Amino acid sequence: MPADLLSAIITLLAIILYFFMGIRVAQMREKHGIKAPATSGHEEFDRAFRVQMNTLEALPVFLPLLWLATYYFHSFTWLPAALGLVWVVGRVLYMNGYMADPDKRGAGFGIATTAQLGLLIVAIIGIVQSWPDA
Amino acid sequence: MPADLLSAIITLLAIILYFFMGIRVAQMREKHGIKAPATSGHEEFDRAFRVQMNTLEALPVFLPLLWLATYYFHSFTWLPAALGLVWVVGRVLYMNGYMADPDKRGAGFGIATTAQLGLLIVAIIGIVQSWPDA
Amino acid sequence: MPADLLSAIITLLAIILYFFMGIRVAQMREKHGIKAPATSGHEEFDRAFRVQMNTLEALPVFLPLLWLATYYFHSFTWLPAALGLVWVVGRVLYMNGYMADPDKRGAGFGIATTAQLGLLIVAIIGIVQSWPDA
Repeated sequence: MPADLLSAIITLLAIILYFFMGIRVAQMREKHGIKAPATSGHEEFDRAFRVQMNTLEALPVFLPLLWLATYYFHSFTWLPAALGLVWVVGRVLYMNGYMADPDKRGAGFGIATTAQLGLLIVAIIGIVQSWPDA
Repeated sequence: MPADLLSAIITLLAIILYFFMGIRVAQMREKHGIKAPATSGHEEFDRAFRVQMNTLEALPVFLPLLWLATYYFHSFTWLPAALGLVWVVGRVLYMNGYMADPDKRGAGFGIATTAQLGLLIVAIIGIVQSWPDA
Repeated sequence: MPADLLSAIITLLAIILYFFMGIRVAQMREKHGIKAPATSGHEEFDRAFRVQMNTLEALPVFLPLLWLATYYFHSFTWLPAALGLVWVVGRVLYMNGYMADPDKRGAGFGIATTAQLGLLIVAIIGIVQSWPDA
């Protein structure tokens, strides 16, 4: 299976997860009667909002790294998508941990960040490999 | 006309709209004397800020979906760009509605979100179509 | 050297800078005892947070423009990456200026925004150049 299709699926999974977090924010807005444009007002809303915002903060890092790694790294073509899957799983754990208790957000966050660092390294190796006359 | 050129134009339109929203935030910051790093302080500033932030929250979903759909979907090559145009129009309506009254942000938001869901479905169909031996 | 490799390196530099800003936010959170999900509470934390958020707000504009320009503009293939480098330097100056004094964030911000406008123009020229039968 071509590597880009695997990374396309991971991209969709990440986006669907992010969609789901956005729905949760809207639900918490409804549940606790927090009217726009306010973005705080109840602990549970704040957690849902921070989960979504923090994942948003990660997307412009995660997606470019995933695709740079997919495009340039040719040694183990499945590796970028595999790291991407780890990122998605880490983000799910982060979401569940944070909603339960902000102090429990560390494990999932650590897993996702490690996957991102892995993608950064794989992208760098890929770019070096793709260097002309190297 | 190649589908990627149409999607490139849509990408530029979305970015120019987002640029414009950022200028509006800066103007409201000036107008109401809200000094950085504060990000609230006057209802009109708050609305302009939320319009931009909410559009920012949508860009890392919209742009990847637009390009996954453009790259993988080959049945009606103009469809991803057409859905992208609907998204841009929806975001303009969202901006104007929100600035007039936060309760009027629903219609534009709904249009943009529907376009995003359409792109998600088109992207999924495209990936399935591109599956080897499928 | 192929233009896409240069832009890939610029993308990595931008992401590494953003990573670094995120680490600074985490350090300021620790230093000033600001517990999640709070995102304000001390001037120094607020600055670090705004530096990261503002750069985040720029990434979904900067990266698509960089890559549209890289992909479609063929007159001076090094130009998109060169403008991208100016953006990264502007963002470093912005970060250092803002942390020293919010009133000093203007110069770096102006440089980065000018680079973005340059990329927008280069992308538009590139798309026009790539137009079939044009």
